[in-house]
Amino acid sequence: MEKVKVIEIKKSVFAENDKDADDLRKELKTKGVYLLNLMSSPGSGKTTTLIQTINWLKDKIRVAVMEADIDSDVDAVKIKEATGIQSIQLHTGGMCHLDAEMTRQGLDNVALEDADLVILENVGNLVCPAEFDTGAVRNAMILSVPEGDDKPLKYPLMFSVCDLVLINKTDVMPYFDFDLERCKDNVHQRNPKAKIIPICAKTGEGIDAFTEWLLKEVNSWKK
Amino acid sequence: MEKVKVIEIKKSVFAENDKDADDLRKELKTKGVYLLNLMSSPGSGKTTTLIQTINWLKDKIRVAVMEADIDSDVDAVKIKEATGIQSIQLHTGGMCHLDAEMTRQGLDNVALEDADLVILENVGNLVCPAEFDTGAVRNAMILSVPEGDDKPLKYPLMFSVCDLVLINKTDVMPYFDFDLERCKDNVHQRNPKAKIIPICAKTGEGIDAFTEWLLKEVNSWKK
Repeated sequence: MEKVKVIEIKKSVFAENDKDADDLRKELKTKGVYLLNLMSSPGSGKTTTLIQTINWLKDKIRVAVMEADIDSDVDAVKIKEATGIQSIQLHTGGMCHLDAEMTRQGLDNVALEDADLVILENVGNLVCPAEFDTGAVRNAMILSVPEGDDKPLKYPLMFSVCDLVLINKTDVMPYFDFDLERCKDNVHQRNPKAKIIPICAKTGEGIDAFTEWLLKEVNSWKK
Repeated sequence: MEKVKVIEIKKSVFAENDKDADDLRKELKTKGVYLLNLMSSPGSGKTTTLIQTINWLKDKIRVAVMEADIDSDVDAVKIKEATGIQSIQLHTGGMCHLDAEMTRQGLDNVALEDADLVILENVGNLVCPAEFDTGAVRNAMILSVPEGDDKPLKYPLMFSVCDLVLINKTDVMPYFDFDLERCKDNVHQRNPKAKIIPICAKTGEGIDAFTEWLLKEVNSWKK
């Protein structure tokens, strides 16, 4: 028996993704639902970060999650079990990203009347997801310490489209050649306006700053 | 002044990638050149692994490297400076993978008469590069400990197309919830024939086993 709803996403038939994305954003505005698009490499800690974040937020606002994955549904199940919130799995059928139409297919399966915030955990990939506007209000990404502080130089588009960069796994910084200031400089070279929050999803460090940012965002979107 | 040759790769005009890849492999066989396609997530340690490996190999066989990246050329420069071998940079212009025709564009810029082994460092991405045969003799990948032992379940195609899986950054295993045996089981679930070698590119541990495998491969290809 499936523990969470699993949606097989079909490839978008619409070429005009930017228009689709804008339309979706307008609809979400009308419904008072804030959509956050969360991107990262595989293994950066997206799911653990979400569990921590949702457990901080769920008494204050109503949160739902859409987990996009090529195949498995381990993440959606993990989030549902750890937080109890609405959590659905989107299967991309091998596709490396989500566009606005694919995001809409996911949202059609979320009870939006019971959500203030929907978080879309995009496919683990620093390349393709950066190229497609999903219709989210903001893009956020996680860069984890073991990946290295040079990643903004190597994946420039991803860093330039993100409003928020979470730097995760700060607890292992002593074991890696990772310089936080150099990393911040590299991010700001690509995107001077990016907000950067160091976090450790495992210990919970920095999650308060992230949730504070999110709460402000959701409240001003719903006005 | 450019420190290494930088090639701007154009999108392939040929739809029949599998045929192109087979043709390229046959040509390489005739020329006695072995091509290895090395894939991984961003930040798994591909470049550091290559530097260690090349320094072990370069007195035994002639090695050349093609570094594929969306934009920067830091990796090709780093490899050239650390090893002194032929090292060129392929710019994919935002593209998330290389196919056989794009690989050929790169090889056209390598002095193949001076190479026994060419290593293609593919774009850092666990999704798209798995879908395209580059014309390489073998596919190898690096999974690093901080990414987690569950990645074979989440990126099944990548693990199923790889003949060799290097598990890198074994030195930080005590700081992560990573079980080597569970990881091996997960890899073999997807690909029972995959050879797995744990390595630590930073300390050099396991690089001997990797180079031994590579030498055997190259020698039998050249027969």
